Amino acid sequence: MREFELLDRIFAQNGSLPDHVLLPPGDDMALLSLGGCTQLLAAADSVIEGRHTPRGIDPAVIGRKAVLRNVSDVAAMANARPVATIATVVLPRDITQERAWRLYEGLRDAALAWSAPLVGGDIATTSSEDPCAPIIACVTILAVPLDPSRPVATRAAARDGDHVYVTGSIGGAWDPATGLGRHLDFTPRLAVAQALFRELGDRLGAMIDVSDGLGRDLGHIAAQSRVAIEIDLASVPVTPGCHVREALGHGEDYELAFTARGAVPTWIEGVPIVRIGRVRAGHAGVVALDGARHVDISSLGFEHDGGGSRSTMRPSGGAMGGGVST
Amino acid sequence: MREFELLDRIFAQNGSLPDHVLLPPGDDMALLSLGGCTQLLAAADSVIEGRHTPRGIDPAVIGRKAVLRNVSDVAAMANARPVATIATVVLPRDITQERAWRLYEGLRDAALAWSAPLVGGDIATTSSEDPCAPIIACVTILAVPLDPSRPVATRAAARDGDHVYVTGSIGGAWDPATGLGRHLDFTPRLAVAQALFRELGDRLGAMIDVSDGLGRDLGHIAAQSRVAIEIDLASVPVTPGCHVREALGHGEDYELAFTARGAVPTWIEGVPIVRIGRVRAGHAGVVALDGARHVDISSLGFEHDGGGSRSTMRPSGGAMGGGVST
Repeated sequence: MREFELLDRIFAQNGSLPDHVLLPPGDDMALLSLGGCTQLLAAADSVIEGRHTPRGIDPAVIGRKAVLRNVSDVAAMANARPVATIATVVLPRDITQERAWRLYEGLRDAALAWSAPLVGGDIATTSSEDPCAPIIACVTILAVPLDPSRPVATRAAARDGDHVYVTGSIGGAWDPATGLGRHLDFTPRLAVAQALFRELGDRLGAMIDVSDGLGRDLGHIAAQSRVAIEIDLASVPVTPGCHVREALGHGEDYELAFTARGAVPTWIEGVPIVRIGRVRAGHAGVVALDGARHVDISSLGFEHDGGGSRSTMRPSGGAMGGGVST
Repeated sequence: MREFELLDRIFAQNGSLPDHVLLPPGDDMALLSLGGCTQLLAAADSVIEGRHTPRGIDPAVIGRKAVLRNVSDVAAMANARPVATIATVVLPRDITQERAWRLYEGLRDAALAWSAPLVGGDIATTSSEDPCAPIIACVTILAVPLDPSRPVATRAAARDGDHVYVTGSIGGAWDPATGLGRHLDFTPRLAVAQALFRELGDRLGAMIDVSDGLGRDLGHIAAQSRVAIEIDLASVPVTPGCHVREALGHGEDYELAFTARGAVPTWIEGVPIVRIGRVRAGHAGVVALDGARHVDISSLGFEHDGGGSRSTMRPSGGAMGGGVST
């Protein structure tokens, strides 16, 4: 199963959706009209033990990461604040009460901390046929626009002439040997995104959270905005100890990449904002300028299918529909 | 892991939820205030291949059932109509593109048919360690009140003097030998519930969808309404070929059980409505009158933990929070 092929088939169905779906599958979140001027944003993302976290980890870490990934999707819409989460968990049949409770605590505490209280969900256990079944936490997050009279920041809003920016630093979010790293406990860039929305107004263009890998995520912006993106490789803020080429495809950064016109602050909410390139009219794609060389980096990053190069720890999940950035 | 014990611990946390959570975990759906008079209902439910459906079944059946279970939760709130679904799916690593697509088609078609278009979600694959991993479909459903000025039908609204009713017939929804049966393709009682809401007004009391088993589900109403429920066993509409005692605990009926005062139609929207008992002040519980005998049936039905009596095909999942009725 090639996930992006499946997603393309799914996105091709968007035309059959009813009119109250204002932003269909294919962005970080879906946007719905609930009648009048009331709008609702929704996304979902899952965390599978042994796939997005190491096996045998404290289940609270699994629950927390499942919430944080979703909050990162809310951030990527800029004009949004979370209001609630709903979780479905699938538990190994022989899980102890205490480990199941830890999973709940991880979900509950992260959800409350991000003003997205856990309001419902479902618990199911796997069948006894499957002795090594993992813990799975699927979280749906709901959000509302900060200002319903203004648009949310989609992936399709990059314009010729915008500059391209990234928050924080890229790469090194997880250790390929152990699966540990900051991808298990990060600060979604919600405050940064909201501040950018307020400060830049309509100078803010497209936005996405960096979860698949910066190259691939900028590729989503390029494809959906139908623009060419050029990156100066030397300007990408790389986490110390990482090589830039690896960092671009590493994934799980949970930083923001966005485009904007005019002046953009170099720090917001204590987080550095670095200009890394520009948007031009032209063939949709992402090209990195590496000295004199031009390298297509729009497919650098995870494809979350069954045929990837990492068989055990592959931190990211895949976006279906308006759901998820990763 | 005893699921209902875990749920009780979770429901005990409801007091820490913020004020915009109008109906916290513990009912068929959660109810949120989005500001002003805008209210939103949310629930989630999952279907696991080999647990809630037979193994190796057409994946479209898995997707469809995951949506239908959620629509049944919307029905159970009476004053509600679905607006959207979000799905996270966990796929075996070696699933074919065609089977993955069938899962999507099952989700999409059922969602559109019930006016709850699939607007987003997530695709993840299990790790290669797990060769017999099942298909898992987790669906969140969103709904809005038909009339925001009136309450939704909760499990806590049964009153001394109400009569108890059930729609359709109980029992025989699945074949223990094959796992097949009408639980794989049923008509959620949404139109019936909406018609009851409109016709009975505030004479409608508590409502729940029958998924765990009629005994246990009436037990939820009794516990949350703090009332005693008496059932006339002879009056329960049992599916032909089933014995009433088995039918009460069979589960997966996806009918409605509700309480009401005054006259109630015997048919609504082509579905029979049968009076099966009454609500009295008293110790919370459900007693069946079987001739001269009184039998406590409030624990007849599925507990969806790891220690049940059926190891492979156990159709129901378990409700966490405002999520799910089953």
